[in-house]
Amino acid sequence: MEPTKEKTTIVFFSGDLDKAIAAFIIANGAAAYDHEVTIFFTFWGLNAMRKDEVVKVKKGMLEKAFGWMMPRGAKKLGLSKMHFMGMGPKLINHVIKKHNALSLSQLIELAKEQGIKLVACTMTMDLLGLQQDELIDGLEYAGVAAYLGDATEAKVNLFI
Amino acid sequence: MEPTKEKTTIVFFSGDLDKAIAAFIIANGAAAYDHEVTIFFTFWGLNAMRKDEVVKVKKGMLEKAFGWMMPRGAKKLGLSKMHFMGMGPKLINHVIKKHNALSLSQLIELAKEQGIKLVACTMTMDLLGLQQDELIDGLEYAGVAAYLGDATEAKVNLFI
Amino acid sequence: MEPTKEKTTIVFFSGDLDKAIAAFIIANGAAAYDHEVTIFFTFWGLNAMRKDEVVKVKKGMLEKAFGWMMPRGAKKLGLSKMHFMGMGPKLINHVIKKHNALSLSQLIELAKEQGIKLVACTMTMDLLGLQQDELIDGLEYAGVAAYLGDATEAKVNLFI
Repeated sequence: MEPTKEKTTIVFFSGDLDKAIAAFIIANGAAAYDHEVTIFFTFWGLNAMRKDEVVKVKKGMLEKAFGWMMPRGAKKLGLSKMHFMGMGPKLINHVIKKHNALSLSQLIELAKEQGIKLVACTMTMDLLGLQQDELIDGLEYAGVAAYLGDATEAKVNLFI
Repeated sequence: MEPTKEKTTIVFFSGDLDKAIAAFIIANGAAAYDHEVTIFFTFWGLNAMRKDEVVKVKKGMLEKAFGWMMPRGAKKLGLSKMHFMGMGPKLINHVIKKHNALSLSQLIELAKEQGIKLVACTMTMDLLGLQQDELIDGLEYAGVAAYLGDATEAKVNLFI
Repeated sequence: MEPTKEKTTIVFFSGDLDKAIAAFIIANGAAAYDHEVTIFFTFWGLNAMRKDEVVKVKKGMLEKAFGWMMPRGAKKLGLSKMHFMGMGPKLINHVIKKHNALSLSQLIELAKEQGIKLVACTMTMDLLGLQQDELIDGLEYAGVAAYLGDATEAKVNLFI
């Protein structure tokens, strides 16, 4: 019998660019150390998983409004601090490039390659009116029960 | 000997409506899976446990000022994002109702029914000048030692 | 063989005064209960570890700009809520003094005395252009791998 793998879970709630980068760096690090890693995207965190382009789906007015108001994908997220009317994210992306560090989009790609489980919270998708077609490919869809199943077997459980 | 129950703890610090909903959904989910769950309310998180109505208690000026400035109870909390001068919480409560999801007040009631331990941090109560009469019934009162006692026995420990 | 100690880790990301106080109260509490405690300072959290005074180091323009814009040390941090143009932190520090509670600077000193491991994230130091000379003495310097090494052995792992 092979030893069971360490497990790590992250609830990504905030949807901030800086916090998303931190979440994916921890997640990719853990996967590199052979942990089974799950990131559970809920509330504003779901915005990090939206496709960059507008996707035509049938929605009510309120759901459309949420769709317009919320950032569309990893390249549009704001910062949790020092947002400076949108200049902050540009600065951060600039220094990331300058230091040859990975951008959030690249960190997400790496996560997929490493087999990190990216789970969209179906309950908040319903509330915010986000549909599967609007989110990037390769996601799983589940609720709080699935998260707790993973978290109960993990030692590192973070809410970001 | 019966097997010991899984334990889950949440430090609820932020006092934001959206984060409170996430905290109580995770907590109620864990309790439904038979975890022993503790939510430890500290700093602005205590505001989620205030009674809706004004409670007459003797206070100094500064404590009164804190009392006025901070949201009074679960129905008055703001959002961590997209607050829109108070329109955001109304929108969220609207979509929650529309989808027949539970409001924060209902999630708190459910938590009590499920025997989730709701603990108010006595140290921050002192700092912010909040008194037991101003908080909802059914709370326990303790400090960081009690939190650590629970957290050390739990696998899922979140700071929200 | 002596029993292994409980371990506790905190990623301090936010750099807010109120969250820093919460992080150090939990960390010092855990150390008092004989846990091995690590606080890992990343992103804006690094600002809590800056020296109060301006330190002359050679930097590029952008790194200088970050240095100016970000709060210089534990005494300059803002609040996550109720910042009120800088009045909020003064109020909090006032009530802390009034109640004979420890200030953040004192909590940091206590953490050092208790042997809490304070680790600065080298990757974000690079990104934000912070150098070792600008941070307080007694820090360790490491990356996400070191954090994960500690966290995997800990039961209480928080992201603050």
